Amino acid sequence: MNPEFYDYISEKLFKAGAADVYFSDIIMKKGRPGITLNVICETELADVIKEIIFTESTTLGIRMFRFHKETLSREFKTISTIYGDVTIKHSYLNGKEVSAKPEFDECRKIASEKGIPIKEVYNYMMSLITKFK
Amino acid sequence: MNPEFYDYISEKLFKAGAADVYFSDIIMKKGRPGITLNVICETELADVIKEIIFTESTTLGIRMFRFHKETLSREFKTISTIYGDVTIKHSYLNGKEVSAKPEFDECRKIASEKGIPIKEVYNYMMSLITKFK
Amino acid sequence: MNPEFYDYISEKLFKAGAADVYFSDIIMKKGRPGITLNVICETELADVIKEIIFTESTTLGIRMFRFHKETLSREFKTISTIYGDVTIKHSYLNGKEVSAKPEFDECRKIASEKGIPIKEVYNYMMSLITKFK
Amino acid sequence: MNPEFYDYISEKLFKAGAADVYFSDIIMKKGRPGITLNVICETELADVIKEIIFTESTTLGIRMFRFHKETLSREFKTISTIYGDVTIKHSYLNGKEVSAKPEFDECRKIASEKGIPIKEVYNYMMSLITKFK
Amino acid sequence: MNPEFYDYISEKLFKAGAADVYFSDIIMKKGRPGITLNVICETELADVIKEIIFTESTTLGIRMFRFHKETLSREFKTISTIYGDVTIKHSYLNGKEVSAKPEFDECRKIASEKGIPIKEVYNYMMSLITKFK
Amino acid sequence: MNPEFYDYISEKLFKAGAADVYFSDIIMKKGRPGITLNVICETELADVIKEIIFTESTTLGIRMFRFHKETLSREFKTISTIYGDVTIKHSYLNGKEVSAKPEFDECRKIASEKGIPIKEVYNYMMSLITKFK
Repeated sequence: MNPEFYDYISEKLFKAGAADVYFSDIIMKKGRPGITLNVICETELADVIKEIIFTESTTLGIRMFRFHKETLSREFKTISTIYGDVTIKHSYLNGKEVSAKPEFDECRKIASEKGIPIKEVYNYMMSLITKFK
Repeated sequence: MNPEFYDYISEKLFKAGAADVYFSDIIMKKGRPGITLNVICETELADVIKEIIFTESTTLGIRMFRFHKETLSREFKTISTIYGDVTIKHSYLNGKEVSAKPEFDECRKIASEKGIPIKEVYNYMMSLITKFK
Repeated sequence: MNPEFYDYISEKLFKAGAADVYFSDIIMKKGRPGITLNVICETELADVIKEIIFTESTTLGIRMFRFHKETLSREFKTISTIYGDVTIKHSYLNGKEVSAKPEFDECRKIASEKGIPIKEVYNYMMSLITKFK
Repeated sequence: MNPEFYDYISEKLFKAGAADVYFSDIIMKKGRPGITLNVICETELADVIKEIIFTESTTLGIRMFRFHKETLSREFKTISTIYGDVTIKHSYLNGKEVSAKPEFDECRKIASEKGIPIKEVYNYMMSLITKFK
Repeated sequence: MNPEFYDYISEKLFKAGAADVYFSDIIMKKGRPGITLNVICETELADVIKEIIFTESTTLGIRMFRFHKETLSREFKTISTIYGDVTIKHSYLNGKEVSAKPEFDECRKIASEKGIPIKEVYNYMMSLITKFK
Repeated sequence: MNPEFYDYISEKLFKAGAADVYFSDIIMKKGRPGITLNVICETELADVIKEIIFTESTTLGIRMFRFHKETLSREFKTISTIYGDVTIKHSYLNGKEVSAKPEFDECRKIASEKGIPIKEVYNYMMSLITKFK
């Protein structure tokens, strides 16, 4: 498949409701390098997803199996920073916070607009979150 | 495992009836680079496949799970080209054609015999198929 | 490095004039999975590129070497199609055409707007180009 | 995730009883390079394993599914060699030996202490095993 | 090559003075999965390194080329934390600090001894460093 | 590029005199999965190799650099085995043997004809070689 197709299909699958789309490298029959397209979605979306894959990609077969997915519960809070308000994503396992991090797109925007290295913006946000705790 | 073993085992698994055989790279315990051997086969072939893997490879364990595979229905047709007759593989999803492409081995043979770049032969075949539609 | 940083840095490097930016997977010291950032640029851009990498990424060292790059000469032509005018990129080796393909972004736009599978739009364009020859 | 975390988490998971832990490379949303952490464990360990992953790593979701694992039965025997006693791991499929190899850590120790290339030590052990048969 | 050999050889190369050792996956002749061993060292070490590779691995050929390596200048400072003194690695580009991070092995030790998630220890250290600035 | 093209091109490059041809996975611009084609050849073959790559593949650019390649000197000897004569490839570094292994294609042929697992044939040959020393 033309590599230019990948992000097009990926985007289309996300729009159709896929929970996740990712690619991985394999070595196929006769030693040909190949790429597997992996899509995670709710059971009721399976038919729509399948049709997109068969219609848009060049694959001849799709393998499907069900699995259980466990996700952390999330909460979005806003904190004040020297760059203005920023959204923090908090994640909880059985009610206990196990992770907190700033929304990347907001850090990215700040970095671009202020001309500050992205890692400096990100680390600053992380230090505020850590202090909060 | 000696890398020279891979294509030997792959070939042996296909001969035994495997529907697909492919390899993927992983990072194992203690950061050792590893290769997983993946085989897809009908349930009734599982025992034969398992014996080949255990006997021919150096693996100590095989993980097995069932999944549902959906494949496009296919039809092979022949078209006339300036290089002679060529087989075209048509694929259908619910009766609607979603893909059509020339048999690669026939394109390859033409490219070799006529001294024409493979992509030129392939694109020419694709243009004939597209015109047909 | 936070994976969210990759496309940010990649974009920044392209904006600064990098000819190409790509990533590859490696297994680092102690078996840690790592990613190498590879940048190709003109010699006179090396300092700017180096500063971006050191400032924006978490790397501690950059390896540099010169190489010769040979590229095909290109020409862009426009053809009329049932979907309107489309740009075709022709590539030449010593004056002889070795490749011709439609601009992907234009195909993508047509596919989205008309609701046609991307591979159908692409193959149609390829067949027009091939007929031209 | 900081690459330095990988071997820490891997070690922690093995200590908690995981049967296997490995990593593989993927291409995530927006073309970001990613690493999947794969853990194989008995069903009754799932909760402990899950908590370690959510607490120690930066993942937001874990996918789980059951599979059947077939392993060769093993037996450890000791043989006398010019370097002292060495443990040999014999593997059996339905009572028939399909593999025999020296414990790597013992070969490694001999190679280090005697200043002999590891492959020479290993091949020597393999030749003793093969002669035994 | 037996995957168990990789970390043995890697360790041996680092002991001999290699600046970096890493592995990457390739697809070799006849589609066989392969691993390249990459070693970076000072020119005067080349002969020692080469001998280790040829003696310990199963390779038949080594490719060598010189390149220029640019590294950040580093400074190690100690800060007081609620877990005791911790070393911080500061990196500078043309005299300007572009990165600062805690020594991972010290964080790891604290995490293990106190039973705190590694990412919590690490983020706490990062917040102290950031506050310092 | 159509994955079916890879082994065709690889074969063509070997026929033209390439010393080695291999592929590796990268993540290209916009996160597209890509494959690099790597060819190693003598300087005087560069033009022929370049023309094949530009003509047969879909690449638009080739990067070239010179490097020094060090290879072990080799000698082929024949030994008598219970399966008949087999060729052994001996490799030497500064006159000292550092490796010896049986020709894989001969082992493969024996394994196929006698119905013996490939690793058993291979290990048997290795044990004979080791005894020889």
